[in-house]
Amino acid sequence: MNDHNLAKPVAAIISTGDELVTGRTVDTNATFIAERLGAIGIEVCSVITVGDYPDRIVWAWQHSLAHADVVISTGGLGPTADDLTSESVARVAGTQLKLDQSEAERIRQHFQKVGRPMPENNLKQALFPIGAEIVPNKLGTAAGYRLVVPMNERRPVAVVLPGVPREMKAMLEDQVIPWLLQQAPEDRCTLSRTFQTFGMSESALDEALEGAIDPSKGRLSFRASFPQVSVRVTVTDTRTDAEHRLDGLAQIVRERLGAAVIAEGETTMEEVVGKLLREHRRTLTVAESCSGGLVGNRITNVPGSSDYFVGGVIAYSNELKQRLLGVQERTLTTHGAVSEETAREMALGARRATGADLGIATTGIAGPDGGTAEKPVGTVAIALAADGLDDGVRSRVYRLWGNREWVKLLTSQVALDWVRRYLLGLDPLTSVFGMRGRKR
Amino acid sequence: MNDHNLAKPVAAIISTGDELVTGRTVDTNATFIAERLGAIGIEVCSVITVGDYPDRIVWAWQHSLAHADVVISTGGLGPTADDLTSESVARVAGTQLKLDQSEAERIRQHFQKVGRPMPENNLKQALFPIGAEIVPNKLGTAAGYRLVVPMNERRPVAVVLPGVPREMKAMLEDQVIPWLLQQAPEDRCTLSRTFQTFGMSESALDEALEGAIDPSKGRLSFRASFPQVSVRVTVTDTRTDAEHRLDGLAQIVRERLGAAVIAEGETTMEEVVGKLLREHRRTLTVAESCSGGLVGNRITNVPGSSDYFVGGVIAYSNELKQRLLGVQERTLTTHGAVSEETAREMALGARRATGADLGIATTGIAGPDGGTAEKPVGTVAIALAADGLDDGVRSRVYRLWGNREWVKLLTSQVALDWVRRYLLGLDPLTSVFGMRGRKR
Repeated sequence: MNDHNLAKPVAAIISTGDELVTGRTVDTNATFIAERLGAIGIEVCSVITVGDYPDRIVWAWQHSLAHADVVISTGGLGPTADDLTSESVARVAGTQLKLDQSEAERIRQHFQKVGRPMPENNLKQALFPIGAEIVPNKLGTAAGYRLVVPMNERRPVAVVLPGVPREMKAMLEDQVIPWLLQQAPEDRCTLSRTFQTFGMSESALDEALEGAIDPSKGRLSFRASFPQVSVRVTVTDTRTDAEHRLDGLAQIVRERLGAAVIAEGETTMEEVVGKLLREHRRTLTVAESCSGGLVGNRITNVPGSSDYFVGGVIAYSNELKQRLLGVQERTLTTHGAVSEETAREMALGARRATGADLGIATTGIAGPDGGTAEKPVGTVAIALAADGLDDGVRSRVYRLWGNREWVKLLTSQVALDWVRRYLLGLDPLTSVFGMRGRKR
Repeated sequence: MNDHNLAKPVAAIISTGDELVTGRTVDTNATFIAERLGAIGIEVCSVITVGDYPDRIVWAWQHSLAHADVVISTGGLGPTADDLTSESVARVAGTQLKLDQSEAERIRQHFQKVGRPMPENNLKQALFPIGAEIVPNKLGTAAGYRLVVPMNERRPVAVVLPGVPREMKAMLEDQVIPWLLQQAPEDRCTLSRTFQTFGMSESALDEALEGAIDPSKGRLSFRASFPQVSVRVTVTDTRTDAEHRLDGLAQIVRERLGAAVIAEGETTMEEVVGKLLREHRRTLTVAESCSGGLVGNRITNVPGSSDYFVGGVIAYSNELKQRLLGVQERTLTTHGAVSEETAREMALGARRATGADLGIATTGIAGPDGGTAEKPVGTVAIALAADGLDDGVRSRVYRLWGNREWVKLLTSQVALDWVRRYLLGLDPLTSVFGMRGRKR
């Protein structure tokens, strides 16, 4: 295999697991790793996915190590008989597995801490190929490792990580990426900055940023992580020049994308909203119909959210909209449950019932049933009640799309974006996502 | 590469495209194809993904054809210079590309129909390796094809499809799958059954199933999709024998795992709970503190959940626990918000406020802050109020683990499992996950 510039390191990815070759799980790990490697200037030349069979795993490793300088694998590090990655790596490297006492102890302690007996087979997770440098896993029992695997004249490195996305991501970000950056020639460094955006599609972002960055100065990459799209700017240069240039390019991105940028770094919408509520010393309540608790769930995913989130009402039935939020029966019969009028009364009612400063309400048709010609699936009304708005409340009907979970997720995202825009002093209606018949 | 029964056809998948190895796009095509092949008993032994480089595409084809009977590829059939699949396939097959007049005509007509001039390079899409059987594309300009590629003694078949998911899916379903079924020896088939479990770890399941299934008769595989673990049993045999044997093995799994099996197939806990509520004609409400809306969110992910879910209260602050659920101030001051006593009053209060048949309550410390020596992070009280329970309510304190989102997710899962067990006529306290301490 050729086609790559030999001055730059080249990576290969291996994903292991029956669930990946039987169509039960989409391999998002490989995508995540590829994007992170690309951002530090390492090209991925192949991704090989195999099921849990020793010969196939060995095959994948042999062919990946044959052309890549670094091979990153995920999966097959569990405690069960079908977890075969370490045996296979040892076989390819011509070495043996050996018990690491301190990892064994860590696993024992983990089970002690959670108060469950440790199944004896869990000790398998403390077996590593001789020569491996352990990559600790702070979030689970499966530690990873790095291992140099001599191949003819070359010394490619195997990086072995668990398949649980949360654990893999933390280990990649905190340990593997920094290690890879250390391997680069000393005077070169690769820096990147990420912007989280909401309200523009990938192609709209692409257009907005067209010509913004000279390809010889920096690279732009996008990653859609519905409903947000992250934009990353990467530069490679000497340390001083790289930092300076990155600052300049980041400023261009900020200017071009405006309020569509919700945060820099890996921040979530709910974290941004939480930070703004805290800064402005406001409290929030929710009145959720079609989102069914998702807005509250997202807000409370942020540590410390009890400082600004009081709770709220999941008013799924019309009866509960009346009983707990004081929505008028006439409003429901005249305008329907999915209407700006109902959403407004829900938002105002939630403020009244809880005493919070801001009340955000959602009511819509998440589907797949319940749509009509006038109000098809995806029709969602959002309302925000807060001081300083005309009549104390703002509302709008959106036409969202996708399946039930997407409609719910988009609804929660738009609702949170309304709170964000309000706290930034913007009109919530500037949240452009899903607006029909309007361009900005 | 080995590990496969040569009596069965084995497939390999190739996904081609820079967007796949730079992390810009998740490869859902491979997952779709793998699932469809698995369903007709064709095992996928590898998926290889490469960018748009001729040598890499050739490499992927050579290695895939070397071990698979059928290689299905997507991508690289467009009209531009970086669409290189057909050149590469021709190179691997040792043949040339040749213009197909009728495809060229179809492409010309397509452009005429949409009223755009045809860029000359679009004719590239009418070039096929000599010997290819065209697989028409009704939805786009890129036709696919099948080609026998002699490899030593073997005659594996290359199936080349475009990368646009909509076009690929239609061609796979309407043309490739029927063709594959025609090729299969009539008497062989692979069948599998999946069980969703909750309450046992992957290794505890492994232990519980040890020796249950003779490896020559069937294969067990596990997939942890926190907080559930799915167990799959697969058999390959003649159709009659396979079905019969699978029934027997499935029965063994059911018996060994008991109530830890929440469903068969790809069902979620919330679907199981919804189905039971519907069958028993009961309605549900929630009173969520530490889960923050997650229980409601999960329940409402199921289409039609408005038939049995009325909504509820996210009682995040103590004030809301009192205002909306009628929790006594004395209970909060004496026992604390995270206590069985508070959970019980929340569950009873939610039933009272909403009129639902079942009320499930959660209150706990999701962390990372707020833990004490007596009530560390992960301490969660669950209560279920329903007819037929002593005093109309059952409760328990759990010690859960993990980070904030895990504690919330586990809390919601245990809460749903309580509803499930109650509706099955079991004591909710038989939900074994994370059990600690006293019973009540």
